Amino acid sequence: MGSAGEDQSHVDVLIVGAGPAGLMMATWLAKCGVKTRIVDKRGTKVFNGQADGLQCRTLEIFDSFGFGDRAWKEANHMLEICLWNPDSNGVLQRSARIADTIPGISRFQQVVLHQGRIERFFLDSLESCSDIRVERGVLPTKLELDESLVESPDAYPITVHLRHLSEAEATPTQTGTAANGSAIQDGLFRSNLTADDTAELTRASALDAKSNTEEVVKAKYMLGADGAHSWVRQQLGFTLEGESTDYIWGVLDIVPITNFPDIRMRCAIHSADSGSVMVIPRESKLVRLYIQLTTAAYNGGKRADRSKIDPDAILQAAQKIMAPYKISYRRLDWWTAYQIGQRVGTQFSAHERIFLAGDAVHTHSPKAGQGMNVSLQDSFNLGWKVASVVKGLADRSILKTYESERRKIAQDLIAFDHQFSRLFSGRPARDIMDEAGISMEVFKEAFEKGNMFASGIAVDYCASVIVAKETESNPVISTQELAPEIKLGKRIPSVKILSQADARPWHLQERLPSNGRWRVMVFAGDVTKPSQKEIIERLGAALDSKTSFLQRYKPAGAHYDSVIEVLTVHAAPRNQVDIFDFPEVFRPYDEIDGWDYEKIFVDDISYHEGHGRLYETFGINPEEGCLVVLRPDQYVSYVGRLDDYDAVDRFFSGFMVAQTAQ
Amino acid sequence: MGSAGEDQSHVDVLIVGAGPAGLMMATWLAKCGVKTRIVDKRGTKVFNGQADGLQCRTLEIFDSFGFGDRAWKEANHMLEICLWNPDSNGVLQRSARIADTIPGISRFQQVVLHQGRIERFFLDSLESCSDIRVERGVLPTKLELDESLVESPDAYPITVHLRHLSEAEATPTQTGTAANGSAIQDGLFRSNLTADDTAELTRASALDAKSNTEEVVKAKYMLGADGAHSWVRQQLGFTLEGESTDYIWGVLDIVPITNFPDIRMRCAIHSADSGSVMVIPRESKLVRLYIQLTTAAYNGGKRADRSKIDPDAILQAAQKIMAPYKISYRRLDWWTAYQIGQRVGTQFSAHERIFLAGDAVHTHSPKAGQGMNVSLQDSFNLGWKVASVVKGLADRSILKTYESERRKIAQDLIAFDHQFSRLFSGRPARDIMDEAGISMEVFKEAFEKGNMFASGIAVDYCASVIVAKETESNPVISTQELAPEIKLGKRIPSVKILSQADARPWHLQERLPSNGRWRVMVFAGDVTKPSQKEIIERLGAALDSKTSFLQRYKPAGAHYDSVIEVLTVHAAPRNQVDIFDFPEVFRPYDEIDGWDYEKIFVDDISYHEGHGRLYETFGINPEEGCLVVLRPDQYVSYVGRLDDYDAVDRFFSGFMVAQTAQ
Repeated sequence: MGSAGEDQSHVDVLIVGAGPAGLMMATWLAKCGVKTRIVDKRGTKVFNGQADGLQCRTLEIFDSFGFGDRAWKEANHMLEICLWNPDSNGVLQRSARIADTIPGISRFQQVVLHQGRIERFFLDSLESCSDIRVERGVLPTKLELDESLVESPDAYPITVHLRHLSEAEATPTQTGTAANGSAIQDGLFRSNLTADDTAELTRASALDAKSNTEEVVKAKYMLGADGAHSWVRQQLGFTLEGESTDYIWGVLDIVPITNFPDIRMRCAIHSADSGSVMVIPRESKLVRLYIQLTTAAYNGGKRADRSKIDPDAILQAAQKIMAPYKISYRRLDWWTAYQIGQRVGTQFSAHERIFLAGDAVHTHSPKAGQGMNVSLQDSFNLGWKVASVVKGLADRSILKTYESERRKIAQDLIAFDHQFSRLFSGRPARDIMDEAGISMEVFKEAFEKGNMFASGIAVDYCASVIVAKETESNPVISTQELAPEIKLGKRIPSVKILSQADARPWHLQERLPSNGRWRVMVFAGDVTKPSQKEIIERLGAALDSKTSFLQRYKPAGAHYDSVIEVLTVHAAPRNQVDIFDFPEVFRPYDEIDGWDYEKIFVDDISYHEGHGRLYETFGINPEEGCLVVLRPDQYVSYVGRLDDYDAVDRFFSGFMVAQTAQ
Repeated sequence: MGSAGEDQSHVDVLIVGAGPAGLMMATWLAKCGVKTRIVDKRGTKVFNGQADGLQCRTLEIFDSFGFGDRAWKEANHMLEICLWNPDSNGVLQRSARIADTIPGISRFQQVVLHQGRIERFFLDSLESCSDIRVERGVLPTKLELDESLVESPDAYPITVHLRHLSEAEATPTQTGTAANGSAIQDGLFRSNLTADDTAELTRASALDAKSNTEEVVKAKYMLGADGAHSWVRQQLGFTLEGESTDYIWGVLDIVPITNFPDIRMRCAIHSADSGSVMVIPRESKLVRLYIQLTTAAYNGGKRADRSKIDPDAILQAAQKIMAPYKISYRRLDWWTAYQIGQRVGTQFSAHERIFLAGDAVHTHSPKAGQGMNVSLQDSFNLGWKVASVVKGLADRSILKTYESERRKIAQDLIAFDHQFSRLFSGRPARDIMDEAGISMEVFKEAFEKGNMFASGIAVDYCASVIVAKETESNPVISTQELAPEIKLGKRIPSVKILSQADARPWHLQERLPSNGRWRVMVFAGDVTKPSQKEIIERLGAALDSKTSFLQRYKPAGAHYDSVIEVLTVHAAPRNQVDIFDFPEVFRPYDEIDGWDYEKIFVDDISYHEGHGRLYETFGINPEEGCLVVLRPDQYVSYVGRLDDYDAVDRFFSGFMVAQTAQ
């Protein structure tokens, strides 16, 4: 909560906005033990409607924070995309089936769950590991950044005034927020509340005792995750660049009563002349329909007459598009309407002190299910970097990679959405000569290509001080061919490995939780071969020396793996070695816990869950092995030889801060 | 809580004892909506120590109540058993490795988690689905059963006096309870508390306001799940029969500091002359050691001098057995000592009104990890039966199957434990001529055979009104050969199937949650074949008739699947049919929810999780199919032809009660 002076307090990081991007940031900082406040002007979290697609990469990230299983269990799983369009007689038919997630790219597949549940998982995670609590009904009113202090490590260059709202101010009439940020009055039915949200609702009616007061907060760093109309962005004078279009879409979340056979599949339905519908099956028997509104009244210009749009009008449009199938409903959970627009921010930070994330720097249409994912992943990229710098472990130079890495993603997203939306909104071509229409073959191909982007797995960060790709300036260059499938700049893929000590199978990524640690992955090869064993002995000696990077960057008194963790995966048969065959630095000793049994793994067959074949899958030669450095967010920094200790040392020297107490 | 008169209240079921067996019973009754109270004389639940092995069948059962994933995530997974014994020079060596769980028998494998967490999962489940709360510090003092009323459906033949203890009475000095029930003072270190137990501890300091009062409760049914010294059993005058032995064992739960390489495996270590150790690796870096105490002082007679037993003495015994490996510790979580004894109750119920479960009817040694599992499964067998009878859905005759089914299991358990304990406690044979010693080959074979029993999967219930095995008296006989691997009397095995409507893969058992429903599983075969389709149409018509068993046994106004649920798994290619190809009774219509998309499944390949091959695995001919009836606890009642509707109708007529309002 920040130790308060009279009306001024200090905090390391202040987050404005407690949607997914803000909560992700808070969770990272909580896991890393950074003093943080997070405020939101709304009186409660959201309970229904809103964004809801979860990419497989997002689920991997959730799993790294310990709640991937909750999302996986509660969500609706989407397995198949069905494309429907008119046959040669103009009658709607299913023309193709596509896997919704490309098989093999992740251990998770895309699922759907509404934003309120995602926020719940973050809130529970914050409660379980920190004192950070979302302060609701709190509005920032003034922001100052002292530019003379931005490069001083211990300074608090940011001053923010916060006003604590009264209850009435914090709980305005609920409105639907369109994807481009414009607020539209909607019908809101709280049919979908779950038990653990009840307490949240109760709390909302009794906001904090500071109601109607104002305070001043001094912060080292700040995140504006306050949505498309970002107040933080406005204070910084940054703008979004892009365009909007004429297309208006309605959204209905209903329990459908229909004889359309694919209503529980993700469907793209193009009618001959009445527009398109996208079907997104959801949890609790709900289905979300995105419905193109083609009636002239809605489309007279950039600002259509929205007062004419209501659930009945949207349903009628859907019925026309989906004919001859019937569709109606008795239960409506939420609805809204929006106009498509794609915009991206020119700058993602002010002096790497105040950052923007999520809708505050990119807006686009919701149909590809990307919005929440890209927003979450913005602050997933940023959180550990800010934590490392605040804690004095890393240099401020790593903060520049936030914009260089994430602005490109936002631009890719905008381009993807631009193409996808236009294909989706267009009328299907009647035949090959119909040039004004959209070819369904082109649409299907775009869908298939889009799936890779939409998975979140394709993200590939550029060369930087923390990604040792080949560039002119990088002092350390990787040897990618030692592990062709552990691609520099991308997240490490996951296969099953076994713990050497107890034979338990784990997915590799399960051993890479988000706790702020860098990982040195030692792919030791077949250590029953004397040559390989000797290499490992030498590497162990280098790592164990008093001046090794393991020692230099670890604060005095910190646990041996708190900054950089060494994990080993060897390729010898499991039953021919035990952990005591490895140098102690690979299985460190603690005087209370004994030897560490959780650091050494093997690529071998399991009793019940098959064989991960890691060396084969990643293309690593077991008679050579390799060393890989992973960032705290699972992205690959470096791939090199096991006997090139110096290169790894040089890599860390590029941005880590030696701990003087050493 | 029971609607109270002055000092007398009525309840459908009263449960005495809130350990695993009592909590399982309460959870069943909660899921079925039966008015229930559960009391326990202790002031809090347990927090460490105690039983901890979870069989794969127990995990399947937990999963059916919705918390299998919590146990699976928190538990330590044991994959391998290592046998250690002296080599020809008398030096300890690893002589064999065995899979801890037989591969393929379940989708879960045996894991370890302490009893306090299991109780937490049950308590959370009760809170989420009912008003039933454990009333702690409540002691029964008087029990009467009016035998003249035991056959009257609506009577309350049981009268119990309950005394509400003062705080001091309810929280005695914590003692370890030995497996044979004798209490032994122990050292208790609460190092292992988890966050969600903190509230429980707080609550314990403020027991209910009725402290030091007494009340009278009238109950229809009662369960004594009050442990080896069961007060309920004593009131009924029932006894346990069996024997105890001279062997004394010590138990240490420690974080070990050791160079023994298999400390994270389950190990059976036989020393040449110093006795045996069993190693059970646990969660939170803990390891449980069961250590045979051979010093004469402990073994002078049936009642050894336990005052000489403390953690140091037990550790010294372990060090002697495990030499030349070193073992010590800095953290001790819990310890106890016990003498092996095996006993089983002569009767499991009084007039099928008052039942006993768990340690109240069987005690044995803890080393096979069976105790909590068999206890839980006692009341898992009983709960739905009592609920069905209380709700007037089933005849009281089904209650007799509790004793006929569970007493045999208890006897098997005792026999298994008897053999296993003696093999484990014996000295290894020096050579083939050493007849006083135990052959390590015989021991390994016993271990391997024991694994099938210990999984809980082998349970095979005998013929009865609810298991249509061939007997002289049964009016309905199954045709087992239609599905040779869906064995009558055993739980149905599980393979992956796909939902027809959305292509999502599920494990079959995931579609069989514990909610009190009987299931008619229609294995419809290849419904694209006209002959098979015709059979399904005819079956649909029979099921849909006004007089079908689906209609007769459903209370007026109840949901269509609330008593008997029809689930279909067909064998046609998924993309050649949709749910509207099946008669409506297989995918019923609801005026608010539309058609039910969750009743029809297909045996086909999934996008990401392989092919379950159900028909092949279960031995069902897709050109014939079959119909299977499952009890609410997933055990197989009946297997028959799809065109023999009458046999199924006759089966249900044997014990179901027609709902007069029909």
